[in-house]
Amino acid sequence: MPRYRLTLEYDGGTFVGWQRQANGPSVQGALELAVLAFSGEAAAVHGAGRTDTGVHATGQVAHLDLTRDWPAATVREAINARLVPHPVTVLAAEGVDDAFHARFSATERRYLYRLLDRRGPPALLRGRVWWRREPLDVAAAAEAAAALVGRHDFTTFRDAGCQSASPVKTLDLATVERVGEEVHFRFAARSFLHRQVRSMVGTLAEVGHGRRPVADVARLLQARDRAQCGTVAPPQGVYLTEVLYPNTFTSAAAAT
Amino acid sequence: MPRYRLTLEYDGGTFVGWQRQANGPSVQGALELAVLAFSGEAAAVHGAGRTDTGVHATGQVAHLDLTRDWPAATVREAINARLVPHPVTVLAAEGVDDAFHARFSATERRYLYRLLDRRGPPALLRGRVWWRREPLDVAAAAEAAAALVGRHDFTTFRDAGCQSASPVKTLDLATVERVGEEVHFRFAARSFLHRQVRSMVGTLAEVGHGRRPVADVARLLQARDRAQCGTVAPPQGVYLTEVLYPNTFTSAAAAT
Repeated sequence: MPRYRLTLEYDGGTFVGWQRQANGPSVQGALELAVLAFSGEAAAVHGAGRTDTGVHATGQVAHLDLTRDWPAATVREAINARLVPHPVTVLAAEGVDDAFHARFSATERRYLYRLLDRRGPPALLRGRVWWRREPLDVAAAAEAAAALVGRHDFTTFRDAGCQSASPVKTLDLATVERVGEEVHFRFAARSFLHRQVRSMVGTLAEVGHGRRPVADVARLLQARDRAQCGTVAPPQGVYLTEVLYPNTFTSAAAAT
Repeated sequence: MPRYRLTLEYDGGTFVGWQRQANGPSVQGALELAVLAFSGEAAAVHGAGRTDTGVHATGQVAHLDLTRDWPAATVREAINARLVPHPVTVLAAEGVDDAFHARFSATERRYLYRLLDRRGPPALLRGRVWWRREPLDVAAAAEAAAALVGRHDFTTFRDAGCQSASPVKTLDLATVERVGEEVHFRFAARSFLHRQVRSMVGTLAEVGHGRRPVADVARLLQARDRAQCGTVAPPQGVYLTEVLYPNTFTSAAAAT
């Protein structure tokens, strides 16, 4: 059966998260209903990352199989037409080899966390950023973030409900920089533990707000103790921005 | 009476516009209710620009008079606390001379128009940009925009309901540039006619989409004929970004 790879943007604020659930609308569910409406097929849509309630995406990747060999551009346009009024968009669709799996083939996932540190609450970025009144010391948070890079046991920054087999992950990137009125935290790794990004950001923000010394982050990491994690940052600042795959899956048949 | 100058951000999507009206919630009305709730005074809030339904602001300026001489920071914080849940924020408040008038003292108003030209509809920027599927030729639109700069009779780009005494205005700036996935149109003038920004953008977009030659814009301007204006661009792409005043009104007592 022809397999399609989709690149997705969505506003996580109106969903219970990526994954199909009984307690409310999910991104996966909205996509599967759109696929059914267009093709008549009850195809499962598999995502690279199972984003939490409220978490956004500008570059989530998913795949699905259809019986009929539609042009990729038709798949993109037809799903988008049926997604209305859900805030989910297929940015790109392409035909891929059936060895491609959005979740298992991924070699890197990239996240952005947006924090707005200013006196006035966001009017235009409500639900898009974490708003904090206090100015954040970017240099201190960036220095602390550097201690997280590398292969570590991230138990301290792992949600109690995490189902990952191991707490050991390799973090390839952890940066903090000011972008206008916002502070942007960026992380990259092959995979992340449940709520790892929000746990890391919450603790780094405590450093940036002067509530913890920079050295605390390395100490907390070594403690491997969830109870020592700082306050977990809220979901509305998280964006899954990109998922990378081996070059063997790069196709010339993309319809973007 | 102490006069205060406010710098405001708002999401125009939930309002009938800046001005108090019988047919729905206005930005001015939300601010005046917040002022009343905090100070007990029914003070009028005067804005620099009477933005239309759906038009946003990141730098609207307004002024109001209060009987009591509150610290500017208190005014800012107290109004923000009472504005919840309206998407309006006081970014800054400062005490100003009572000769200052948000509307009449202004020497320049600056607008940004955001157009998103890509295949997929906006999921995260819904209500924040004008979405067009077709790619826009920025060079052509920018060349056409240059013809609008200067002192002209803007009758072609003036809404039928415009109450301005004269259609002659001096446009100081008209630029078009690509910023990531978006096209940003920027305009600056002492004052604008009603829907002038949206009328100009709509016509410039027709040039950028290859429906009109570049030279058409100068020709339309000279025609001084509203019927020859292109389609008026929708309000959700408009942002009032800044209002400038003479230096004599610059105060050291700003609380930002």
